[in-house]
Amino acid sequence: MVDELMMDRMHEECGVFGIWGHPEAAQLTYYGLYALQHRGQESAGIASIDEMTMHNHRGMGLVTEVFGGDRLKDLRGHAAVGHVRYSTTGDSRLANAQPLVFSYHQGNMALAHNGNLVNAMTIRDRLERQGSIFQSTSDTEVVAHLIARGGYPSVIENVRDSMAMIKGGYAFVILVDDALIAMRDPQGLRPMALGRLGDAYVVASETCAFDTVGATFLRDVEPGEMIMITSEGLHTERFADASRKALCTFEYIYFARPDSDIDGYNVHMVRKHLGKILAREAPIEADVVIGVPDSSISAAIGYAEESRIPYEIGLIKNKYSGRTFIQPSQELRNLGVRLKLSAVRKIVDQKRVVMVDDSLVRGTTSARLVTLLREAGATEVHVRISSPPVKHSCFYGIDTSAREELIAAQKSVDEIRDFIGADSLSFMTEDAMLTAFGVERGKPHGFCNACFTGLYPTEVYQTNKRALERQVKV
Amino acid sequence: MVDELMMDRMHEECGVFGIWGHPEAAQLTYYGLYALQHRGQESAGIASIDEMTMHNHRGMGLVTEVFGGDRLKDLRGHAAVGHVRYSTTGDSRLANAQPLVFSYHQGNMALAHNGNLVNAMTIRDRLERQGSIFQSTSDTEVVAHLIARGGYPSVIENVRDSMAMIKGGYAFVILVDDALIAMRDPQGLRPMALGRLGDAYVVASETCAFDTVGATFLRDVEPGEMIMITSEGLHTERFADASRKALCTFEYIYFARPDSDIDGYNVHMVRKHLGKILAREAPIEADVVIGVPDSSISAAIGYAEESRIPYEIGLIKNKYSGRTFIQPSQELRNLGVRLKLSAVRKIVDQKRVVMVDDSLVRGTTSARLVTLLREAGATEVHVRISSPPVKHSCFYGIDTSAREELIAAQKSVDEIRDFIGADSLSFMTEDAMLTAFGVERGKPHGFCNACFTGLYPTEVYQTNKRALERQVKV
Amino acid sequence: MVDELMMDRMHEECGVFGIWGHPEAAQLTYYGLYALQHRGQESAGIASIDEMTMHNHRGMGLVTEVFGGDRLKDLRGHAAVGHVRYSTTGDSRLANAQPLVFSYHQGNMALAHNGNLVNAMTIRDRLERQGSIFQSTSDTEVVAHLIARGGYPSVIENVRDSMAMIKGGYAFVILVDDALIAMRDPQGLRPMALGRLGDAYVVASETCAFDTVGATFLRDVEPGEMIMITSEGLHTERFADASRKALCTFEYIYFARPDSDIDGYNVHMVRKHLGKILAREAPIEADVVIGVPDSSISAAIGYAEESRIPYEIGLIKNKYSGRTFIQPSQELRNLGVRLKLSAVRKIVDQKRVVMVDDSLVRGTTSARLVTLLREAGATEVHVRISSPPVKHSCFYGIDTSAREELIAAQKSVDEIRDFIGADSLSFMTEDAMLTAFGVERGKPHGFCNACFTGLYPTEVYQTNKRALERQVKV
Amino acid sequence: MVDELMMDRMHEECGVFGIWGHPEAAQLTYYGLYALQHRGQESAGIASIDEMTMHNHRGMGLVTEVFGGDRLKDLRGHAAVGHVRYSTTGDSRLANAQPLVFSYHQGNMALAHNGNLVNAMTIRDRLERQGSIFQSTSDTEVVAHLIARGGYPSVIENVRDSMAMIKGGYAFVILVDDALIAMRDPQGLRPMALGRLGDAYVVASETCAFDTVGATFLRDVEPGEMIMITSEGLHTERFADASRKALCTFEYIYFARPDSDIDGYNVHMVRKHLGKILAREAPIEADVVIGVPDSSISAAIGYAEESRIPYEIGLIKNKYSGRTFIQPSQELRNLGVRLKLSAVRKIVDQKRVVMVDDSLVRGTTSARLVTLLREAGATEVHVRISSPPVKHSCFYGIDTSAREELIAAQKSVDEIRDFIGADSLSFMTEDAMLTAFGVERGKPHGFCNACFTGLYPTEVYQTNKRALERQVKV
Repeated sequence: MVDELMMDRMHEECGVFGIWGHPEAAQLTYYGLYALQHRGQESAGIASIDEMTMHNHRGMGLVTEVFGGDRLKDLRGHAAVGHVRYSTTGDSRLANAQPLVFSYHQGNMALAHNGNLVNAMTIRDRLERQGSIFQSTSDTEVVAHLIARGGYPSVIENVRDSMAMIKGGYAFVILVDDALIAMRDPQGLRPMALGRLGDAYVVASETCAFDTVGATFLRDVEPGEMIMITSEGLHTERFADASRKALCTFEYIYFARPDSDIDGYNVHMVRKHLGKILAREAPIEADVVIGVPDSSISAAIGYAEESRIPYEIGLIKNKYSGRTFIQPSQELRNLGVRLKLSAVRKIVDQKRVVMVDDSLVRGTTSARLVTLLREAGATEVHVRISSPPVKHSCFYGIDTSAREELIAAQKSVDEIRDFIGADSLSFMTEDAMLTAFGVERGKPHGFCNACFTGLYPTEVYQTNKRALERQVKV
Repeated sequence: MVDELMMDRMHEECGVFGIWGHPEAAQLTYYGLYALQHRGQESAGIASIDEMTMHNHRGMGLVTEVFGGDRLKDLRGHAAVGHVRYSTTGDSRLANAQPLVFSYHQGNMALAHNGNLVNAMTIRDRLERQGSIFQSTSDTEVVAHLIARGGYPSVIENVRDSMAMIKGGYAFVILVDDALIAMRDPQGLRPMALGRLGDAYVVASETCAFDTVGATFLRDVEPGEMIMITSEGLHTERFADASRKALCTFEYIYFARPDSDIDGYNVHMVRKHLGKILAREAPIEADVVIGVPDSSISAAIGYAEESRIPYEIGLIKNKYSGRTFIQPSQELRNLGVRLKLSAVRKIVDQKRVVMVDDSLVRGTTSARLVTLLREAGATEVHVRISSPPVKHSCFYGIDTSAREELIAAQKSVDEIRDFIGADSLSFMTEDAMLTAFGVERGKPHGFCNACFTGLYPTEVYQTNKRALERQVKV
Repeated sequence: MVDELMMDRMHEECGVFGIWGHPEAAQLTYYGLYALQHRGQESAGIASIDEMTMHNHRGMGLVTEVFGGDRLKDLRGHAAVGHVRYSTTGDSRLANAQPLVFSYHQGNMALAHNGNLVNAMTIRDRLERQGSIFQSTSDTEVVAHLIARGGYPSVIENVRDSMAMIKGGYAFVILVDDALIAMRDPQGLRPMALGRLGDAYVVASETCAFDTVGATFLRDVEPGEMIMITSEGLHTERFADASRKALCTFEYIYFARPDSDIDGYNVHMVRKHLGKILAREAPIEADVVIGVPDSSISAAIGYAEESRIPYEIGLIKNKYSGRTFIQPSQELRNLGVRLKLSAVRKIVDQKRVVMVDDSLVRGTTSARLVTLLREAGATEVHVRISSPPVKHSCFYGIDTSAREELIAAQKSVDEIRDFIGADSLSFMTEDAMLTAFGVERGKPHGFCNACFTGLYPTEVYQTNKRALERQVKV
Repeated sequence: MVDELMMDRMHEECGVFGIWGHPEAAQLTYYGLYALQHRGQESAGIASIDEMTMHNHRGMGLVTEVFGGDRLKDLRGHAAVGHVRYSTTGDSRLANAQPLVFSYHQGNMALAHNGNLVNAMTIRDRLERQGSIFQSTSDTEVVAHLIARGGYPSVIENVRDSMAMIKGGYAFVILVDDALIAMRDPQGLRPMALGRLGDAYVVASETCAFDTVGATFLRDVEPGEMIMITSEGLHTERFADASRKALCTFEYIYFARPDSDIDGYNVHMVRKHLGKILAREAPIEADVVIGVPDSSISAAIGYAEESRIPYEIGLIKNKYSGRTFIQPSQELRNLGVRLKLSAVRKIVDQKRVVMVDDSLVRGTTSARLVTLLREAGATEVHVRISSPPVKHSCFYGIDTSAREELIAAQKSVDEIRDFIGADSLSFMTEDAMLTAFGVERGKPHGFCNACFTGLYPTEVYQTNKRALERQVKV
């Protein structure tokens, strides 16, 4: 049941962190990954460089589990990169854990990657024909081969050249013997920020990692920018022309931590703003506004503020959910969502409830929550979703369900309302959502809304498309 | 640092759960304990009874960790009791895990206990002189010996007689071969509720466990009440005369889950009400009200509602805090509170902030949070505590710090304000706090506020007092 | 299959070790237990005493598994006792691990016990009627209660008095705040030796533990002797009159390590001598003598020496047998004994083979080994057992199978020979066996051969008998 | 100390196993690896092929540890390869675990390798210059790249072509989508055998694996032979011309299991024969012959038989040595070798002892054993080594110590005798050793004795030499 709840969410696939120029590089990376843990809980890894020797450790599980005991002590050196990963299960799970560490003709390299390349399979096919071997299914390994086969005399040229060949959404942090390199895709689909900690530079998927390690935010890495940090200092260049920016809106809606700022917007503030817009777009007469913990609380507070209906804590989440949870026996299946979420009867009993959720993927969780609230005495349950209906798969690093499992790709809003058993259901429109970022209706903007609109900001390769469809069915 | 944060909280010592008359008794107990996990994370255990054979399993760790694999399958039977425990570290940790399971002349017994007996040491001394051996330091073992030495022909008589000898705050759930027995101390210091699940009866420290297993709340167990459930049904009696009730207010302030109802009051509602009262008692001109997650959010919302200063999510807690967290090296000690909590800069920057916290024990966490908020740009930080100053140790099952570590036992409010670096600091008065329960100022009431007032509702034995003082220093 | 092989052996139930007067008492106990590991692999534990504070740690598994990490560092003090245990599976396995550590009116006590008390259940019943509670099924807990209820002002008096009440085979090592006490039962059924390591005294089930820790053997503890070691030195006394000694012969035949000396006889030498006697008692014309590893090698060498048939290594045991071995699927069941033992084809092919084994319990292993040897080309397989047929259960600490599973209790030698498929089969007679110890045929001797003869050296209580029969069936 | 004992041995680096055509391929591979566990205890892995899908699992530890729980169930399919590895510690240990599984333009491949390539670094350098990346330090990855870059249309052509490029000692088992391929180096330095199990074919480093899974030995794989097994049957060819065969003699002396037959000789029989020859070459007047367990027992029996001095079990090895053994504190360092081996005092006291050992590497263990025997009362200790002095590093897959740590490379036999404190010391000569295989003195033979003679049967590359020297110092 709990697993089912998790399947009814979109999943970020990774978080990355890098630091150059600090004697405790690996320990700071550990804390940075700890702050980014929400971006991936399946595996974690850190690589550090110490006088031309690369150390690394990777494992399955949370950062705190993978780096127990004295693991960090072996990761000596003044620079490190780290990675957390959400991955689908399979034979080669550990093989897919990152950073990918390898040696090649120019020395050692550690690659940490958040995102997805849309032409990875095409390139991989060609690389295989040229004699490359692949020990994982991760597209990060494709990039490693590209760099190694670059043929240029300098690392930076080979990296730059490889970036010219790949398409998709990505944030890369690369550690080599004498430099830390950070890159963000030309559309800026995936976020990455640059910070400073004393004399050291840090990069991370989200700024919350800077706050945790005590670093100062300098600026976001630009779309198409490559930043190289060496003992000489920071060098920056663009490896791709400025194209239309297309930052993933789901970072704001669901993935990122509320205290992170991405490309100038604070995540919590955006969510709250979305809640306010939703209250204007889809008002309803009710007694209480509640949010689905944890990610929808901000939007619910916004909805309440705007609607002047009191905000309340109507659903409580069990803080101790573990991955090893024993599933209910067949006889106890009806316990359902209760194991993870509880309704506060005193709040909802005899009340007309607005339940704000940030997104709706399969609809099964919403259905269970509506039932839960009714059993706790709610006389009406009005569901408000602070994002548009998810109708299309993502090819840039987000694990949506397969299209046939996206309820909004199959049913109308009325049908979904009936499916989840709500008294009313409203989604946000794309235009309204964009106003949270100050974008006027119908005007060009810098966001990727492909999962809502099907308008992908890059070419989407057919082979890749089929492969993804296949993969997500597993 | 994280550990230090934990030390700066009061700790509930246990949660109990029992069920009689269900074919999946152990699995339901597992879910019940999972819902009560916040009451104790150090050890967990379940005992079940199956045709005169008692099965049990106990271990160190979270419920989900202790009961991995097929552990539950061995716990057959139609009745079970469970226990979660917060315990201080030490040699005999596992020996102290509950339920305490033993055999004696009347058969098998499993004892699960939340609370603390103030005369345990006195009784233990006498029992030892009479030839009893003790394999743990838990006072639960004292009760086991009392029952076994009762000398009456029936279990219930021996239990009743033993209850007459012990003093303190407690909720007991006892499983014997043919009955489940639940008892609450005469003052009702520790909570316990009774529920129904189909034909089965359930008892639990908090009603949130009922919601999780799908049971219906029937009523609270009365102070001094002993409930015995057998295949014949439910029998109830009083084993102690009605004395002045004295339910622990800290259950509402900090320990219990917001969705639980205790003795007629919903925990979240009480907290919110406390926030409102605090806003009236200690108003301040400010731009934003924030709460310290998770337990102070309700009070912060109340404070905001009453003061009409906007409520905001100004502090974010890392959801993945684990007990195996690698502590920062000496060089990184300044990371401090950041590893667990982050300030949302966009919320607090250039703002006058009211930070609502539910309690203040040592003051070290508050000091760090004030610094964190100032570093994030807050121009003023006003700390509001939704409970009175904690000045006295608890003898009824709560792990307060030793008196010398309770800052309010040593310093005035002004001195504490200076210590934590706040612009202003206000606590709630005991009288005001009681109005949240509808108690008029100065009128008799049914709550234990001994940790604030030093007025203990039972005799407090000197040996016990010294022992506790010694224990908590460890 | 491997499990089945293990079931076809008799099992020692425990090993004990104690040391007084050494700053590294716990670490030496660890090494001592490591040397005694063959006496019990299910659980291990150590208790130490440090200035009136008792430390202890117990766990399931091998000594090296239970005491990983820094476990030993917590076990401070100048004295310690340790225990390894073979135990039958069950709910309360960890509860049965030793040493049993408890506090009572005279302070702390840790009890480590090898053996079995025949009147434990009778005493336990009475203790329960007097109000004792039992948290395990081990008879060690019975002794703890007896001591605690002794009523004498000194520890030693209470221990002495308790010994007077128990009957059976046992070796006890007891650690109290100011003394280490070692006792051996009046018949000397279970072994125990006394040694010296610098200024420290050590006691152990077998002398091999002395060699491992570098201690010098002083003498065996006498049957009915109680040795008390304090800071004042060693005090000895008899707590029981000299009765006929009855040391367990199976200690020599199978349990003890070949390098141990017990009551004046070296184990390996006895085994080899048994092999020689067997060659005289049951000669056969053959080409090669082989032993079943590991315990029968000594006897096989003796048989070969006496018979002048060449000794060879005809069976090889896999050194890496683990308890977590994955059992063969139904399809692969025929792999049988091969997973643990292999025949050396070059040795046995086209040969008439004498296979010497130390004992025969159920016969299933022997049957498989005969088949294995035939498949490897042996033309004849003659099985020689260097002990008499096992026909009776043991009540003194050995886990024999239940009587109905002892093949020699059900079948004649000829029938057993047919069952195992050997060309010939011979057991040793009791009289002949005793000659290995210099006992003339028919003369009184100091050994317990009850499992062969049914003549128990102590009273065997009916309740106990029934209980054991029941237990071993599980 | 125990670690030190292990360092004073040469180490086999790997064992391989493969099976084609059995529905329980992975489980049989598990048992096969279990039988080969003595060839490597650091990591284990299995890959299986199931309808074009390759499954695999690898981990650090013993076979029984790596494949706990349901791991084998995921390894579906009718064919599998497995690997056990002894590896030096380091950052990337798991990355070096085998089989190496990868995909390339011709499908999936799993490579399991025992041995060492002398020109791996040279080829790796060139491959890196051509753009290959390396995720491990194992030379197996070099072969994977060679195969993938072969450029031929068929797998077999690419494998054959790759074999033509590598030099050294190796046994490869390769699993691809539709075939199992087994290869042995042109000199036959490392062993490999072919067997049959019903309709299935099996290959393994040693025949003991066949006995364990119930397979029948067909023949040894020939030096320079490539065997390909498909659904069509078995195809064989030579990928290298017949050169002088050079099987590693240390396989017989120490590595292989006594019950294995390699290239026509049974390991135990060779060892025993070596013991006999040694008795003739280096006789001594003594009372008892003992062997160092486990590997020297066979030679000791041979020495005893030939010399007519009685063979005895004078040293006992602790069966429960674990890798997690807690090392003695500084104060207890003198416990030394006692933790692993014990002398049987009754055997050696007042005796002139011949201690037969199979090899002598650093001499530290021998020194400790001589002391141990003298402390147990031996009046004379004569050390007899059943192999010549080890003076040179191995480049074919054996982890000798670095040359400067090989005592025989630094000292004369007399100096070594003094170092180990023996009354006399004799090694076997190379010529005498070869007579055990029927080779006449001075005649050409098919064995590699490079570690004794420095005469390497293949070219030894300088870069490789330096690298190995460096590596072994770590």
